[in-house]
Amino acid sequence: MSEAAQTLEGWYALHDFRAIDWTAWTSASESERQQAAEELESLRREWAGTEEAKQGSTAFYAIVGQKADFMLMHLRETLEELNELETAFNKTSFAAFTRPAYSYVSVVELSNYMGQPGVNPLEIPEVAARLKPILPKTKHVCFYPMNKRRSGADNWYMLSMDERRAMMRSHGMIGRQYAGKVKQIITGSVGFDNWEWGVTLFADDALQFKKLVYEMRFDEVSARFGDFGDFYVGNLLTDEGLRRMLSVRQ
Amino acid sequence: MSEAAQTLEGWYALHDFRAIDWTAWTSASESERQQAAEELESLRREWAGTEEAKQGSTAFYAIVGQKADFMLMHLRETLEELNELETAFNKTSFAAFTRPAYSYVSVVELSNYMGQPGVNPLEIPEVAARLKPILPKTKHVCFYPMNKRRSGADNWYMLSMDERRAMMRSHGMIGRQYAGKVKQIITGSVGFDNWEWGVTLFADDALQFKKLVYEMRFDEVSARFGDFGDFYVGNLLTDEGLRRMLSVRQ
Amino acid sequence: MSEAAQTLEGWYALHDFRAIDWTAWTSASESERQQAAEELESLRREWAGTEEAKQGSTAFYAIVGQKADFMLMHLRETLEELNELETAFNKTSFAAFTRPAYSYVSVVELSNYMGQPGVNPLEIPEVAARLKPILPKTKHVCFYPMNKRRSGADNWYMLSMDERRAMMRSHGMIGRQYAGKVKQIITGSVGFDNWEWGVTLFADDALQFKKLVYEMRFDEVSARFGDFGDFYVGNLLTDEGLRRMLSVRQ
Amino acid sequence: MSEAAQTLEGWYALHDFRAIDWTAWTSASESERQQAAEELESLRREWAGTEEAKQGSTAFYAIVGQKADFMLMHLRETLEELNELETAFNKTSFAAFTRPAYSYVSVVELSNYMGQPGVNPLEIPEVAARLKPILPKTKHVCFYPMNKRRSGADNWYMLSMDERRAMMRSHGMIGRQYAGKVKQIITGSVGFDNWEWGVTLFADDALQFKKLVYEMRFDEVSARFGDFGDFYVGNLLTDEGLRRMLSVRQ
Amino acid sequence: MSEAAQTLEGWYALHDFRAIDWTAWTSASESERQQAAEELESLRREWAGTEEAKQGSTAFYAIVGQKADFMLMHLRETLEELNELETAFNKTSFAAFTRPAYSYVSVVELSNYMGQPGVNPLEIPEVAARLKPILPKTKHVCFYPMNKRRSGADNWYMLSMDERRAMMRSHGMIGRQYAGKVKQIITGSVGFDNWEWGVTLFADDALQFKKLVYEMRFDEVSARFGDFGDFYVGNLLTDEGLRRMLSVRQ
Repeated sequence: MSEAAQTLEGWYALHDFRAIDWTAWTSASESERQQAAEELESLRREWAGTEEAKQGSTAFYAIVGQKADFMLMHLRETLEELNELETAFNKTSFAAFTRPAYSYVSVVELSNYMGQPGVNPLEIPEVAARLKPILPKTKHVCFYPMNKRRSGADNWYMLSMDERRAMMRSHGMIGRQYAGKVKQIITGSVGFDNWEWGVTLFADDALQFKKLVYEMRFDEVSARFGDFGDFYVGNLLTDEGLRRMLSVRQ
Repeated sequence: MSEAAQTLEGWYALHDFRAIDWTAWTSASESERQQAAEELESLRREWAGTEEAKQGSTAFYAIVGQKADFMLMHLRETLEELNELETAFNKTSFAAFTRPAYSYVSVVELSNYMGQPGVNPLEIPEVAARLKPILPKTKHVCFYPMNKRRSGADNWYMLSMDERRAMMRSHGMIGRQYAGKVKQIITGSVGFDNWEWGVTLFADDALQFKKLVYEMRFDEVSARFGDFGDFYVGNLLTDEGLRRMLSVRQ
Repeated sequence: MSEAAQTLEGWYALHDFRAIDWTAWTSASESERQQAAEELESLRREWAGTEEAKQGSTAFYAIVGQKADFMLMHLRETLEELNELETAFNKTSFAAFTRPAYSYVSVVELSNYMGQPGVNPLEIPEVAARLKPILPKTKHVCFYPMNKRRSGADNWYMLSMDERRAMMRSHGMIGRQYAGKVKQIITGSVGFDNWEWGVTLFADDALQFKKLVYEMRFDEVSARFGDFGDFYVGNLLTDEGLRRMLSVRQ
Repeated sequence: MSEAAQTLEGWYALHDFRAIDWTAWTSASESERQQAAEELESLRREWAGTEEAKQGSTAFYAIVGQKADFMLMHLRETLEELNELETAFNKTSFAAFTRPAYSYVSVVELSNYMGQPGVNPLEIPEVAARLKPILPKTKHVCFYPMNKRRSGADNWYMLSMDERRAMMRSHGMIGRQYAGKVKQIITGSVGFDNWEWGVTLFADDALQFKKLVYEMRFDEVSARFGDFGDFYVGNLLTDEGLRRMLSVRQ
Repeated sequence: MSEAAQTLEGWYALHDFRAIDWTAWTSASESERQQAAEELESLRREWAGTEEAKQGSTAFYAIVGQKADFMLMHLRETLEELNELETAFNKTSFAAFTRPAYSYVSVVELSNYMGQPGVNPLEIPEVAARLKPILPKTKHVCFYPMNKRRSGADNWYMLSMDERRAMMRSHGMIGRQYAGKVKQIITGSVGFDNWEWGVTLFADDALQFKKLVYEMRFDEVSARFGDFGDFYVGNLLTDEGLRRMLSVRQ
C-alpha cells in the first residue's frame, strides 16, 4: 500500500481572507451600506442552509492585524462549489468594498499514521464524521499553512515509514493534551496550493494556540521538519459582532 | 550526444492567468458586458479554429482561490504566435475588466531518460503526437513550475547520466500508475521563464492531483531534488460555466 | 513540566504601523484636516483613559524612513479589544488619509529560563507588573520580530533545556548591562503572527538600540540561533510633535 | 595583477522592461495614440542615429508573457547618457501608457579567464569591437541576471584562480558549440545592480536558448556555482511588428 | 571592553530614494510644475544652509534604472531631525509628484578593527571629521546595504576577535588601493534598519565601484561572510542637471 493511499480525504476547503476598504465603506451612503450588508446577509443565510443540510460548512471570523479584516472558511463537496461560492461573493455589492488578501485551497485530510493495522478507518464513524466536519463556533481561530522540510539531513520524505510513524505518534500525543481546549482541522493541499498542509485551530482561549504550537515546536517533527507559512488569528464574527464591525456613526 | 540534445521539443506554451475586476464588471452596463463577452467569444472561436486545424491548442479553466479567476493555456508553433495571442486578448474590451495574475512561457518537452538506445524517438508516432498535443478537456487542471535542486549534496546536475536515468525511471513508474486518471504535459522553460519546467496535469477527479503529487514526493527525484513553485488548481470553463461565471443579476 | 508551560503571558499586543497619504492630506481642506485630527484626538483620549484605568496601554511613535509614518502599539486584555481598536481607528476620517504599512499580533511574555527552582514567578510582584506593563514614554522606540533558528546544526529547538537555559542566561547578562538605558518588552507570537517573538525596545538615546542589538549579536543565542525580521525605529509623538507633523502651511 | 583588473569594460547597458496599460491605450482617442506613437518613433530615430554614429546601440524586443510587454536595451558610453535616455522616454506621451516592469544596469564586460599570457587583449581588434558592440537584430532575445554562488562548500570566490580558469574554459567550450546560432553579450553589474552579471542572448531560433542554457547547467560552473534571476524571452520588434502591436481596431 | 563599544558613531543618516510620477509631472500645468520646483529649491537652500553651518550634510543624485529616480542622502545630528526632513519634504507640492521607492536609516560608523592599542581614536582629528562628514560631490554614487553572514560554518559572529581583526585588516588593504578614486562612507544600521550596514561609495569614475566591489568579493570577508542587499547607482544632480531632468517640452 503506497504512501499516498494512506490519507483519507473529505470535503474541499477554501480559506478566503479579505480586507475591507474602510474609506469606501465609511464614505458610502447609508443605503449603499445597507444594500451591501443585506447581500452579505443573504449569502450567509445560504451558507447556513447548506450547513443545516450537512452539505458543507462555513466559518466567519474577524482577523486581528492588517493582514486581513475577515476570513471565510468554506467546506464543500467539490471544487466547483467552492468556485461558485467565490464568484457569488465577488458579484455582491458588499465585495466591492473589499479586496482579496489571501486564500488557501485544500481538502480535509486524515492521515493514517495513527491507524492500526487491520482496521479500515472509514468504518470508524468518528473518522467519517471528521472528514466532513461542521466547523466549530469557538471564540477564536488560528490558521497557518506548512510543509514538511526537505533540506540536507532534514528531509522528511527520505525517512522510512517507520521513522515517520514514530515521530507522528509522539507529535499526536502533544495534540491530545489539548483535547477539549483546541480543535484542529488538517487540510491537505499538495497539488492544490503552495504549501503541503493547512492547519486550522479553533479555541475559546486564544492563548491555547500559542501554548500548543510552541510546545509542538520542540517536538522533532516540527523542530527539524516543520516549515511554516503566515499565521492568521481571529475572533468569531457573530451576528452582533458583524453588525458592530460594519456600523458607521452618522 | 550531449545532455541537451536528449530532449525533444514541440509547441511553445503560454499559461496566462488573469484575475477579474469584479467591481468594474458588476458596475458596467449590461451592453458593455455583452460587448466584452462577445469579444471574448470571438477570440474563443479563433482559438477553436486553430485547434481544429491542428495548428495549436487552447485550454480554458476557472482557477479556485484568489490567485487568479481563470487560466488560458495556449500551445502554438512559435513564440511570435503566443505574443500575438496575448496582445489580441489585451486589446479586447473584455481584457479591460481583468488584470494579469501570473504567466508562464515554456515549450512542450519530452525527455529522453526513458528512451531506448538505437531508437529514434521521433519515429514513434505517439511521441510525435505528444509534442503537439490537443489539450484534454478534463473537468480539472493543475499547474505548477519546478526546478531540479542544486543545493550542497542534493545537486541534480552533478549526478551522472546513469544515476539520473535510474531515478527518472522509478519516477516515471509512479506516473504510469495514474494512467487513465491523470494526463500530464511537461513543458520545458530553461531560458524562457523562471523555473526549469512547468507541469500541467489534467484529471476528472481533482483528488488524483493530490494523490499523484504526494506519492511522487516520497520518490528520491522529488524528495531530494524537486523545488516547486506556486500551485494552481481549476475547473473546466465550459460554455455554460463561462456564461454563469460572467452573468450578473440585474 | 513542559516547555510551553514555562512562559507566562499578560496583555495582548498589536503593533500597528501606518503610512500617511501626504498628497491627500496636504490637498484636503483645512476643515477636513481639522475634523480628521479631532477624530484622532478623540481616540487618543480613549486610549489614555484605558491606560489610566490600568486596562491597557498605548504608545504612539513617528517612524523614521519610508517603512511607515507612525506606529501605534496597543496592549489590551483580549484579542477582541485589539480588533475593536483597529476597526474604530479604520472608521475615522483620519484613517482615510493613511494606509496600512505593517502590523504585528502578539502577547506580552516572560520566559521562565531565568526562573529559580521552587519559586512561583507569579508571586513576584515585579513579574506580575511586567506582564501588564504601562508602556514607557521614552524619546525613541525600536521594534523587530525574530525567530529562533532551526537550520541544520543550528537548531534551537533540538537543544536540551539545559543548553538553552545556559545560553539564555548569558544573553540576559548583556541585557542587564543596559538597565536604565534600554527598556525591553518581549511579546510572544507563536500561533499569532509570522515570527516567534516581537522585541520592542524603549530608550532616550537611540544609539543604545544599536549598541545593545550589536553586542547581543556576538552572543551565541543570536549569532547561531537568531533570525531577524524588519527593524523599525521611531521618535515619540508628543502632542506638540503630532501637531507639527500634521500641520500644513497655508 | 589583481582579479578585478582582469576584466575589460566597454559601453554601459540599461535593460528597460515596460508593460503597456492596454486599457488606457485602447480607450485613448486615435489622435492621442498617434501622438504617442510619433513621440516613440522620434526617439527611435534618435537611437538609430546614435547607432549609426557608433556612439551606442539599442535593441527593441516584445516580451512574451505578463512580465513585460517590451524591452529596450540601450548601450551607451556613460551612465549619464543612460539616465538621459530614461528620462527622455519617461517624458513622452507614449510612456504615460506604460509602467515600469524591470530594469537592469550593467556594463559590457569581457573576462580574461580565456586570455593568453603575454597578450594584451585590447590589442586584439575583435576584443575592442566586442566591448562596444552593435546589438544583433535576431528574431529572438533572452535576458537573465546571475550570480556566482557563495554557499558553504560551493563558494566560487574561495576557489583559486586556476580552478576558476579551468572551469570557465570548459564552460566556454559549450558556448562555442553554439557559435553562429546564439550570440551572447555578458554585462557586469557588480556595484551597479542586484546581481553580478547580466546575460543577453540573441538567436533566430528561440529553442537554441533552451538548448544552450540547459546544456550549460550540467557544467560545474553552472551546476555548482550558478544562481539565476528571472528569465525574459522576446521577439524582435520590427517597424511592422511595432505597428501591429500598437494598432487598435476602430 | 566589549565588541559593541568598539564602534564610534557620528551623524544619523537617511537615504531617501523616490520615483517620479512622470505622467502626473508632464500633464501638470507649467505653473504647477514651477511651484513644485520652487518648493524643492527652497528645501535645497535649507539643506545647503545646514551644511554650511556644519550641522549636517545632504547629497542629491539621480538614480539609473527603474528602482528610483533620485536619492537624497541626509546626515543630521538626531533621528528627530531626519524625521522632520522627511515630513517637510512630504508636505511639498513637489513630493506629490513622487512616490517612495526605498529608504535606509543608519548612523555614520567607524569600526575600531584597525585601531591601534593605547590610542583613543576620538583624539585623532581625521577620525572625528569622518564621523560628521560633509558628503562629497563626486559625479557618481553607489549605495548598498549588507550583513555579515551567520550561516553554518560561515558565521562571522562566532569568529574570535583576532580572526575578525585579521580579515578586516586585509579587507581594508583593498579599500586603500582605491584611495583618491573612491570615497567610502560606512553607516551602521543594527537596530535601525533591515541590514547591519549601509555602504555609500562616491567616485568620479563609476567603473571604480565595480572594480572595488568585485575585487573585495574575492577577499574572505566578502566571499564567505558578505550578504548584500540591492545596489543603487546614480549621477550627481547639479542645478543644471536637476533643471534638465524636470524640464518638459511645451
